[in-house]
Amino acid sequence: MKNTVVFDIIGTCFSLDKPRAKLVEFGAPTYALDLWFAQTLRDAFALSHAGGYKPLKQVLEAELPRTMQMLGVDLATTQLASIIESFAELDLQPEALEAFKILNDAGWRLVALTNGSENSTRQLLERANAIDYFDSIFSCDAVEKTKPHLDVYNLVKPNTAIATWMVATHAWDIAGAARAGLKTAFINQQEKGYLAIYPQPEVIALDLVTAASKIVEIA
Amino acid sequence: MKNTVVFDIIGTCFSLDKPRAKLVEFGAPTYALDLWFAQTLRDAFALSHAGGYKPLKQVLEAELPRTMQMLGVDLATTQLASIIESFAELDLQPEALEAFKILNDAGWRLVALTNGSENSTRQLLERANAIDYFDSIFSCDAVEKTKPHLDVYNLVKPNTAIATWMVATHAWDIAGAARAGLKTAFINQQEKGYLAIYPQPEVIALDLVTAASKIVEIA
Repeated sequence: MKNTVVFDIIGTCFSLDKPRAKLVEFGAPTYALDLWFAQTLRDAFALSHAGGYKPLKQVLEAELPRTMQMLGVDLATTQLASIIESFAELDLQPEALEAFKILNDAGWRLVALTNGSENSTRQLLERANAIDYFDSIFSCDAVEKTKPHLDVYNLVKPNTAIATWMVATHAWDIAGAARAGLKTAFINQQEKGYLAIYPQPEVIALDLVTAASKIVEIA
Repeated sequence: MKNTVVFDIIGTCFSLDKPRAKLVEFGAPTYALDLWFAQTLRDAFALSHAGGYKPLKQVLEAELPRTMQMLGVDLATTQLASIIESFAELDLQPEALEAFKILNDAGWRLVALTNGSENSTRQLLERANAIDYFDSIFSCDAVEKTKPHLDVYNLVKPNTAIATWMVATHAWDIAGAARAGLKTAFINQQEKGYLAIYPQPEVIALDLVTAASKIVEIA
């Protein structure tokens, strides 16, 4: 069995610039995307922690109008729908394809592990001509708990002694993967810093290419 | 045994206006408090969901500098400390004492159930001359899991058939309490709307006095 790199999808491989730009186009401030996404994850994690579960898209949809109300931004139903739809058109981070290639060329197996749905992830990867780099797509929908619950990482944890790395731009995802026994690479793009109180990553990198190179070098 | 109302503390009984004002005084935008607090809860819930645990104050402290960096706000160490310290000086919501009195006069027992520490909650209630209304203070520190994990609500769930209500301004807290079998009152002040995908509250009220009156009326 091959060494494996597990990629987070939303925010890590794919940029959130499109929904951010949509929100700004509709009169919301630039940080509106960050607030909406943080509140969505907060409430998705909360429900999962309380033993319930809803797919991420439903939480994103439920959270959007009230985040806009908090910010005093008045949006029409068609505008709300258009922001949600932009999640189906996320663009790959500029350096993602090169990072995938570095790992594939070095003989690594790539898998996606996402709090999004398997189907939407497959469509994003196909749309970005990146699907061929990936061996498998795993969604938290399969266990009806969100990352960073350990059951989600157990979907990708091998039984053998091969190297398995998680790459993510969310500290909470790295912390969960580390607790599940994976090696971890934190992409310091979005959250601007790792949390000292969390289990620490093996690699901190500014972008996916640097992370991929370091993983190949270390493992 | 008396009917019981369980109060959430931070944001519900006590206003976040002080740390919000501090942040604005130091050059951060008004929404900075909301983003910081949402990211703090997201990451505290995440760690708890992954089977780890850190007290809320530590997560707040770890999250503050990186939220400021995301927003491009440059703060000195003394300013960061001053913002954290303002959490020890939160003011009661203007209508809180009246709401506590309505419930006490009607023979209800009040308890606090918080993701903050027992000690800091006691100090906040003493400082606000509200401690005498409360029978007990329960903190998630006791079970080393955050609300809305059911183990936290089980700290206050009675074994008898008396009425037990949770009052909170966070949808995720109401959802957890509802899943744990408590009756629930959502204060629609902070989050501006309940989530349709969550278990629904018995009462939605604009302030604590209205919620207290409705609870006494219904129970």
